[in-house]
Amino acid sequence: MRLLYIDPVGADSVDPGMYDALLAAKGPQSEIEMVALPEGRPHHVEYHSYEAQVIADIVRITWHEAPAFDAIIIGCFYDVGLREAREVSGRAPVVAPCHSSSAIAAMLSQRFSVLVGRRKWISKMRENLLLYGHGERLASFRTMGMGVRDFQVDHELTCERLLEAGRAAIEEDGAEALILGCTAEFGFYSHMQEELGVPVLDPVISALKMAEMMAEAAARFDWLPSRVGASEGPPVDEVARRGFFGDSAPIGTRLAELAQPQ
Amino acid sequence: MRLLYIDPVGADSVDPGMYDALLAAKGPQSEIEMVALPEGRPHHVEYHSYEAQVIADIVRITWHEAPAFDAIIIGCFYDVGLREAREVSGRAPVVAPCHSSSAIAAMLSQRFSVLVGRRKWISKMRENLLLYGHGERLASFRTMGMGVRDFQVDHELTCERLLEAGRAAIEEDGAEALILGCTAEFGFYSHMQEELGVPVLDPVISALKMAEMMAEAAARFDWLPSRVGASEGPPVDEVARRGFFGDSAPIGTRLAELAQPQ
Amino acid sequence: MRLLYIDPVGADSVDPGMYDALLAAKGPQSEIEMVALPEGRPHHVEYHSYEAQVIADIVRITWHEAPAFDAIIIGCFYDVGLREAREVSGRAPVVAPCHSSSAIAAMLSQRFSVLVGRRKWISKMRENLLLYGHGERLASFRTMGMGVRDFQVDHELTCERLLEAGRAAIEEDGAEALILGCTAEFGFYSHMQEELGVPVLDPVISALKMAEMMAEAAARFDWLPSRVGASEGPPVDEVARRGFFGDSAPIGTRLAELAQPQ
Amino acid sequence: MRLLYIDPVGADSVDPGMYDALLAAKGPQSEIEMVALPEGRPHHVEYHSYEAQVIADIVRITWHEAPAFDAIIIGCFYDVGLREAREVSGRAPVVAPCHSSSAIAAMLSQRFSVLVGRRKWISKMRENLLLYGHGERLASFRTMGMGVRDFQVDHELTCERLLEAGRAAIEEDGAEALILGCTAEFGFYSHMQEELGVPVLDPVISALKMAEMMAEAAARFDWLPSRVGASEGPPVDEVARRGFFGDSAPIGTRLAELAQPQ
Amino acid sequence: MRLLYIDPVGADSVDPGMYDALLAAKGPQSEIEMVALPEGRPHHVEYHSYEAQVIADIVRITWHEAPAFDAIIIGCFYDVGLREAREVSGRAPVVAPCHSSSAIAAMLSQRFSVLVGRRKWISKMRENLLLYGHGERLASFRTMGMGVRDFQVDHELTCERLLEAGRAAIEEDGAEALILGCTAEFGFYSHMQEELGVPVLDPVISALKMAEMMAEAAARFDWLPSRVGASEGPPVDEVARRGFFGDSAPIGTRLAELAQPQ
Amino acid sequence: MRLLYIDPVGADSVDPGMYDALLAAKGPQSEIEMVALPEGRPHHVEYHSYEAQVIADIVRITWHEAPAFDAIIIGCFYDVGLREAREVSGRAPVVAPCHSSSAIAAMLSQRFSVLVGRRKWISKMRENLLLYGHGERLASFRTMGMGVRDFQVDHELTCERLLEAGRAAIEEDGAEALILGCTAEFGFYSHMQEELGVPVLDPVISALKMAEMMAEAAARFDWLPSRVGASEGPPVDEVARRGFFGDSAPIGTRLAELAQPQ
Repeated sequence: MRLLYIDPVGADSVDPGMYDALLAAKGPQSEIEMVALPEGRPHHVEYHSYEAQVIADIVRITWHEAPAFDAIIIGCFYDVGLREAREVSGRAPVVAPCHSSSAIAAMLSQRFSVLVGRRKWISKMRENLLLYGHGERLASFRTMGMGVRDFQVDHELTCERLLEAGRAAIEEDGAEALILGCTAEFGFYSHMQEELGVPVLDPVISALKMAEMMAEAAARFDWLPSRVGASEGPPVDEVARRGFFGDSAPIGTRLAELAQPQ
Repeated sequence: MRLLYIDPVGADSVDPGMYDALLAAKGPQSEIEMVALPEGRPHHVEYHSYEAQVIADIVRITWHEAPAFDAIIIGCFYDVGLREAREVSGRAPVVAPCHSSSAIAAMLSQRFSVLVGRRKWISKMRENLLLYGHGERLASFRTMGMGVRDFQVDHELTCERLLEAGRAAIEEDGAEALILGCTAEFGFYSHMQEELGVPVLDPVISALKMAEMMAEAAARFDWLPSRVGASEGPPVDEVARRGFFGDSAPIGTRLAELAQPQ
Repeated sequence: MRLLYIDPVGADSVDPGMYDALLAAKGPQSEIEMVALPEGRPHHVEYHSYEAQVIADIVRITWHEAPAFDAIIIGCFYDVGLREAREVSGRAPVVAPCHSSSAIAAMLSQRFSVLVGRRKWISKMRENLLLYGHGERLASFRTMGMGVRDFQVDHELTCERLLEAGRAAIEEDGAEALILGCTAEFGFYSHMQEELGVPVLDPVISALKMAEMMAEAAARFDWLPSRVGASEGPPVDEVARRGFFGDSAPIGTRLAELAQPQ
Repeated sequence: MRLLYIDPVGADSVDPGMYDALLAAKGPQSEIEMVALPEGRPHHVEYHSYEAQVIADIVRITWHEAPAFDAIIIGCFYDVGLREAREVSGRAPVVAPCHSSSAIAAMLSQRFSVLVGRRKWISKMRENLLLYGHGERLASFRTMGMGVRDFQVDHELTCERLLEAGRAAIEEDGAEALILGCTAEFGFYSHMQEELGVPVLDPVISALKMAEMMAEAAARFDWLPSRVGASEGPPVDEVARRGFFGDSAPIGTRLAELAQPQ
Repeated sequence: MRLLYIDPVGADSVDPGMYDALLAAKGPQSEIEMVALPEGRPHHVEYHSYEAQVIADIVRITWHEAPAFDAIIIGCFYDVGLREAREVSGRAPVVAPCHSSSAIAAMLSQRFSVLVGRRKWISKMRENLLLYGHGERLASFRTMGMGVRDFQVDHELTCERLLEAGRAAIEEDGAEALILGCTAEFGFYSHMQEELGVPVLDPVISALKMAEMMAEAAARFDWLPSRVGASEGPPVDEVARRGFFGDSAPIGTRLAELAQPQ
Repeated sequence: MRLLYIDPVGADSVDPGMYDALLAAKGPQSEIEMVALPEGRPHHVEYHSYEAQVIADIVRITWHEAPAFDAIIIGCFYDVGLREAREVSGRAPVVAPCHSSSAIAAMLSQRFSVLVGRRKWISKMRENLLLYGHGERLASFRTMGMGVRDFQVDHELTCERLLEAGRAAIEEDGAEALILGCTAEFGFYSHMQEELGVPVLDPVISALKMAEMMAEAAARFDWLPSRVGASEGPPVDEVARRGFFGDSAPIGTRLAELAQPQ
């Protein structure tokens, strides 16, 4: 199965460690490509105005690349462009980290908390979780006072802050599971769940596993994205004729070669 | 007061009739400019993947133009980019048609219906109305089987369909007011409310009136957009240094001269 | 435009400062009259049993006075009698402070808090905000331990308490905007928002601006209160014949002359 | 146990049949008095502006009469004044028909419908049922095209309409129980449930039974109305000193003698 | 009226004090039998997997015993088996403690808190209260750090913990009434409400009173459990032929004789 | 990976076709055992009182068998015993059909409908979908007028009814995907989605795929069921000492041999 992971930041900001994390977590039958956007795009999307700068790219990449993939993963915990990309993904299901990890958390616990970098992020994520139907299951958001670009700088510090926030969520807010609320928080879940004794969901891995499941379901059972009602996509000929999605996918870098040696 | 109306379609698709409608409805103290996006942008945004192609422009126009305006209006009933544009609008409030007309409808009635072109549109609009808090007040959506580009082609036909849909909403769904669910449905409300006997809200005018109110409130009472928590905007120096929002507003056409004679 | 502000307390309890505040905030095209109820009516409506003593008057005043006004404002943050008065207001829209200020707050922020005098008030106001659809946007209520009649006694003390409550709402509850939860809290918003750096909405001014907008919309676009379904009013001849609303408006005092000099 | 039933209409509009219905349904230990308002009050409260004319009376009667009763029943399916009267009822619980019958319906069925006279009534009743927490359990409202004053005119016609509306609710809307949505719909439930095979709740009897239960609970277990938080009542001395609730209960007629022979 | 109280624990775990509490609280016209399950069943149902061990018994007892009773009470604050038992109770209404006490609390207060033994219990109870429609009225859960079997061991300690938890609920969470969230918390309400000044509802008594009311309503007004839609019960002949509910009620002990002396 | 599928009906009612369906749909790395309950248990669980007869068995099987399996599937669209079994499943995640298929439907569509046999089933399933958070996404339930035991009798008839119900859901209710609301509706999804052009989810396969994903996540990432808060299980020694879950799993038949040849 071929999976496409879209890291919605400029190519100059891609963290190869994230691709390693994907390779380490993938199933035996999966091949993963990870793409990022052209240089000059924001290096993080903490701000909604930054999200707005990358959503066209996400749609365009999906449009151009979907035919070559079995499922597509949007690599941002705001689940930016999920609805928009789903519309043009053809036969490929599209998944995203917040949706995927909250779905998994709901199977492992009654209530969960999300550990985020800054208060800024909460409103949009809460709105998403509400739309996904997790209003009652959301124990709390806990913030760490760190930006997206800080998590992978000083691992020890990040881990300490995550443990502190996670412990507070469990003890004070009644969380039974934790979700790391940013794809850049990769690499920490394992140590955390050992320390804290509750499942700690890495959103990158959650989305990957959901993508593999949906890709298999599409391939074997023809469970393809609906194309009626709100799920109707734009007319292919209109898009082609007027070129709304450009001539090619706006991809700044593509990590795929690394996969082969494995 | 200077108001900016962003019509989020390519410049080649702008309907000057909409600008006339704005001029006819504005208050005596208002000046309105209407801008559209560069050519090549979608000529309508019925599809969410099309919305995705214009949201960056909306943010960029807001960023570059906001300092020169007292309020900004996003001219699409999906309220596309409302959250994102609000983040970078400085002192200018940003309003949008669905939010504005539903707020007004709630003051004139207990339940209202929205008349839309096609079933495709409903899901996103319902989601918006839900997030705006109108879940209980929404009597129904009624569709007319028309696309965005059809409304202004044959006025008589459009009017007939609108009356039919509106009548059904009132009689079968219990609507006490109607909202025209597309900015391209301008020009019909007046005849409709005469015929139907309930208030019929034009979303362009609703947004304009809300913008005027908010502009006055900003100017006289310093009721400016919040800039803390979820409303925090990106760091100005980061945006400037890295040029995330481009060098200038991506404006394809600007209707302003027409206003001066008035 | 002629606006009627109903202060739903006995005439002996009217604070002329509130009328001054209205005059100072009104638009150039507005004339405002402020009326209060006959003497003997409660001097505040903190208790719901007190509200019950004034709601008939609000309806009767609306019934008798509406034909002479373009919009009507109910001057109490419980929005007492809003549904009831709307039924008999003819062509005049009726607005109220809690509804108006929460609608404005939703355009300036993602979450807001309401600063109230006493815990007693919260339940009814929460219920109203819930019915208005702001359940998710309500960050918190914060109390100041003051009654309605205390706010204008020692301005410095009130201001101190408001700032303390507001600061806690912002820092601990995630409020991005504040609403002053009583019409008697007039005169404080400006200093507060300078100090706290978030918009602070005065409910009297919020309602006034909303009334002006609705009055203009009624006059120019015929957006009149719906009169079908739940918005249907009582038969005029029945009311007239049986005199349910009395012979004249139960007005104890009328502040209008003050307006002329302006 | 002494129960007070307040029929919130003018004394000239009281239907003695309702008092008979109460006497027939009461428990052996209960004594019931039924009072109506002074002449000149509306003869029905279908309109919210009419409700507004009687709510002060309801509060005043409660204030003056509560010390002599073990529970108080407000006799209108809008549950008019329930919150307001509860505030001043001292040790006496206050109940109302919509709240009581929906609570009973929830014990006998999963979903229920309410049969009302006219569409006008629905919005307020739906809002009440929502606030009472029955949003999911409400299968539908069904209207009969009759006013409050029509139900007892032609019993056969009323019964026919009720059966028709009830049948539709069961078959088309999935109702498992029916509530008669007006206290004036008394006398029909028994025949209806024989015909339709589902429980049909008379709101007058529902409220009476709930009142008896609450009166016993108050008397034997000291389960009295809370007087803290939102349930705090006004200061007794303030009320007394300023006379907000008048000198005596505004009672236009009192049906009690009829009870003695029983 | 004959009432059956099912204590859903093994016969060896029955607390005769609970039966005494029932006898002391019952109405003059009621006879109460209390049954427990066969020995070997769990001695408490704090865990949902324990609940699962007793729910078949609850249904079977209801099936076999309902014809001899006028109402049935399930004696566990999880309201275990309420939906299931209602299906096979014939003409007898079935009530349960959480549903009953929350219904009563809603008549005495605007917001209430539930005092539970351990955090474990909260999720299921919150879910129940949500389904019952009390989401907005639930001020909080407060825990005492005690198991079901601890409450009756050291009354002084239990009372102290209850008072502490109740006080916190009132002062910090805004509770206006308290519900004791376990049938084993019987015997404490009276002292508590004297101390705390708010109604404190004993769930055993709440359920008993509701049962008496429903039994009377069934007997006198034929308000019987609905048997259509979701309330449809299994075909009697199928059950009889295949013996799904066993030959007799799985009753381990029956406390009825104790009643006679009274 | 070893997966256990619990068919919660008596052994005499097992349909081997369901086991074939599981084998046909499983992933290459999965081994599946399917167990049913002892003879005498209900042959279907359409009634909630029947559910009550099997829930203890589900818990006991989970308790005894979980250590030998990587995930457990409860084979009933009521998701009977999901919460209860999760409590005692040790390291094995527990999944169920309604939860799984609604989660998948939410990734393929904005709104979905559930096709059920009889109206009886809807209330509990709606309640489940509400608790799972799908209130807004549920377009409708559509009934076919067939019992659980009818689906596999006349395949052509079933298929015809399913197509008819599905078509109505799509055209009239706005469904974009369909869920077959009973595990006994296996074998039909493929033909249906070809005919109807929208994804049609088989609940057995949905649960199987979710189980495989969760089993892998448990094995590789240690994402195990939470055991704190509401997810805390009963003390192992208490269960062992008192034998609440019996000596062995109450399994009436086990289909596993069939798997080996594959």
